[in-house]
Amino acid sequence: MREQDRPTLEDVAAFAGVSRSTASRALNDDAYVSAAAREKVQAAARDLGYSPNQAARSLVTRRTGAIAVVLSEPEARLLDDPYRTAVMRAGYRELADVDRQMVLIFSDTREDLGRTVRFLEGGHVDGALVFAPHRADPLPKALRLLRIPVVFGGQAAGIKRGVHVVDFDNEGGARLAVEHLIAAGRTRIATIAGPQDQSAAIDRLSGWRKTLLDAGLDPAELSEEADFTLSGGAHAMTALLARRPDLDAVFVASDMMAVGALRTLHAAGRRIPAEVAVVSFDDNATLAPAMEPPLTSVHQDPREQVHAMVETLLRLLDDPDVKPAQRILPVSLTLRSSS
Amino acid sequence: MREQDRPTLEDVAAFAGVSRSTASRALNDDAYVSAAAREKVQAAARDLGYSPNQAARSLVTRRTGAIAVVLSEPEARLLDDPYRTAVMRAGYRELADVDRQMVLIFSDTREDLGRTVRFLEGGHVDGALVFAPHRADPLPKALRLLRIPVVFGGQAAGIKRGVHVVDFDNEGGARLAVEHLIAAGRTRIATIAGPQDQSAAIDRLSGWRKTLLDAGLDPAELSEEADFTLSGGAHAMTALLARRPDLDAVFVASDMMAVGALRTLHAAGRRIPAEVAVVSFDDNATLAPAMEPPLTSVHQDPREQVHAMVETLLRLLDDPDVKPAQRILPVSLTLRSSS
Repeated sequence: MREQDRPTLEDVAAFAGVSRSTASRALNDDAYVSAAAREKVQAAARDLGYSPNQAARSLVTRRTGAIAVVLSEPEARLLDDPYRTAVMRAGYRELADVDRQMVLIFSDTREDLGRTVRFLEGGHVDGALVFAPHRADPLPKALRLLRIPVVFGGQAAGIKRGVHVVDFDNEGGARLAVEHLIAAGRTRIATIAGPQDQSAAIDRLSGWRKTLLDAGLDPAELSEEADFTLSGGAHAMTALLARRPDLDAVFVASDMMAVGALRTLHAAGRRIPAEVAVVSFDDNATLAPAMEPPLTSVHQDPREQVHAMVETLLRLLDDPDVKPAQRILPVSLTLRSSS
Repeated sequence: MREQDRPTLEDVAAFAGVSRSTASRALNDDAYVSAAAREKVQAAARDLGYSPNQAARSLVTRRTGAIAVVLSEPEARLLDDPYRTAVMRAGYRELADVDRQMVLIFSDTREDLGRTVRFLEGGHVDGALVFAPHRADPLPKALRLLRIPVVFGGQAAGIKRGVHVVDFDNEGGARLAVEHLIAAGRTRIATIAGPQDQSAAIDRLSGWRKTLLDAGLDPAELSEEADFTLSGGAHAMTALLARRPDLDAVFVASDMMAVGALRTLHAAGRRIPAEVAVVSFDDNATLAPAMEPPLTSVHQDPREQVHAMVETLLRLLDDPDVKPAQRILPVSLTLRSSS
């Protein structure tokens, strides 16, 4: 059957008398569509012989050999963040290994959204690996209406169902870090959390809090939110020391913020780890071991994440019916002398 | 006239009895084609009514709104090099300002070449901004056969004619640096050069040498080549100190190498600038002022370069007949306490 003879999503929407996005949501089992609309759309799809995945299947016949890696994040942040640059490097390597051209896209502002979506739906890439950590980011929702397979690195903004996700065990990692500090006899364990509009940051904070409560320790006044930057970490550490000068440990939700926290602790004359033990998150290969003292850090490997994402995407290109799933990669704790 | 009715480059080549690449070279006034072949191809183009730029013109009718930024460089190097990340950032910003989607492509190895060319000729982007500093890089030659407008940032490998280039005045910058050191009374002025397979590095070395000779100073034994990395700069400085312990100044061809050179000089107990004055190249906004002591550096602004490249590319999209030219941007010297 030729492409143009197939019923499209537009046909289904017109037949059911709903908008294209309602039709898409109904076919994707999205919660935000009424039961009545869902029935109408599903009936229309049946009557027209429309299969929601045929569009994706038709891609098999006109592959470009290119895969987009989309980073939806303020561009100023992107290139200073060692985790993001590690992701770009891993994307290039993993896609080259399977003979695919990486096409890297920064999507920062709401103005970018239209351009990015237009490019992705233009048939220029076979699929996309998307990092969209901010919960209010409209991009993941917009991508659901497109015909190309998408795999998310980390949570897809607020979307919980019907998306392919490869994430790390952020809460479990925080638990490892805090349990290690408790085992070392620390009792006043603070945290510098990441921005609470990002799932990874939320999960790390919640792992810290739950582990303290499970051990009968009080988290009150011991948490401070920062923005994953060095200066943010330094300021948060200053605030924590002012509020709780008696703190004896800190779990920092990223290596970059930990670098800032170390500066503050050094400036305040606190001995590490004797007076304050420090554990961070990322275990970035160039950052964590180079610090003074070298950082104990929760290890997550961006290359492993991207590898799993590419694997899922290639399966989707073969078979668009692969069931959406959250794949959670385990993390471990790399012990060094900061704790 | 519809696209498919137009004579193509292939038609011209077949008509003239030459290969596609010979036909392309003949029409682009490349030096590496015989006069006989050139005449045959030009006659064929006339007879068939072929205009070398009609293909580019036809793009007007099917714009994608996306522009590729191609970095042809080992990927490991790319994301650690502050100049390259500044270029990525500038590319994103400058293209967003003219409502274009930046599509970033890393092209590292010979295996990447085929993939990159296939993507660029696939109609997925309207044009390309290309950074291909290595003289042996086959990419720029391959791009000449494509139908999309290309503007190079820095010299296009070894290609001298028929390409659009926006470069900095590398030789002039080196001259500024060395004249400044001479004016300060230095007489044994060493240099740490960049890799001599890159035009920018070659031009900076030649600027250093010519300025010394013009001042009646002897450059013998005072130059050392490195690879634009921190550790390369550190090693080259060690070699220079061993060979010429009497050196009283060093011109380093990049900020990153200068960071390494400073480490070596500090470790060797040389006072800067009292015993050894240091001038570098790049004036990277985060690196140069943060050093100890802050670096005097030749200022070049990647954003200014990318801005000029985008300007040229937009003119080419309007009018593919814009005459290829080398646009050389001036540089200046930012004075700080290392000299």
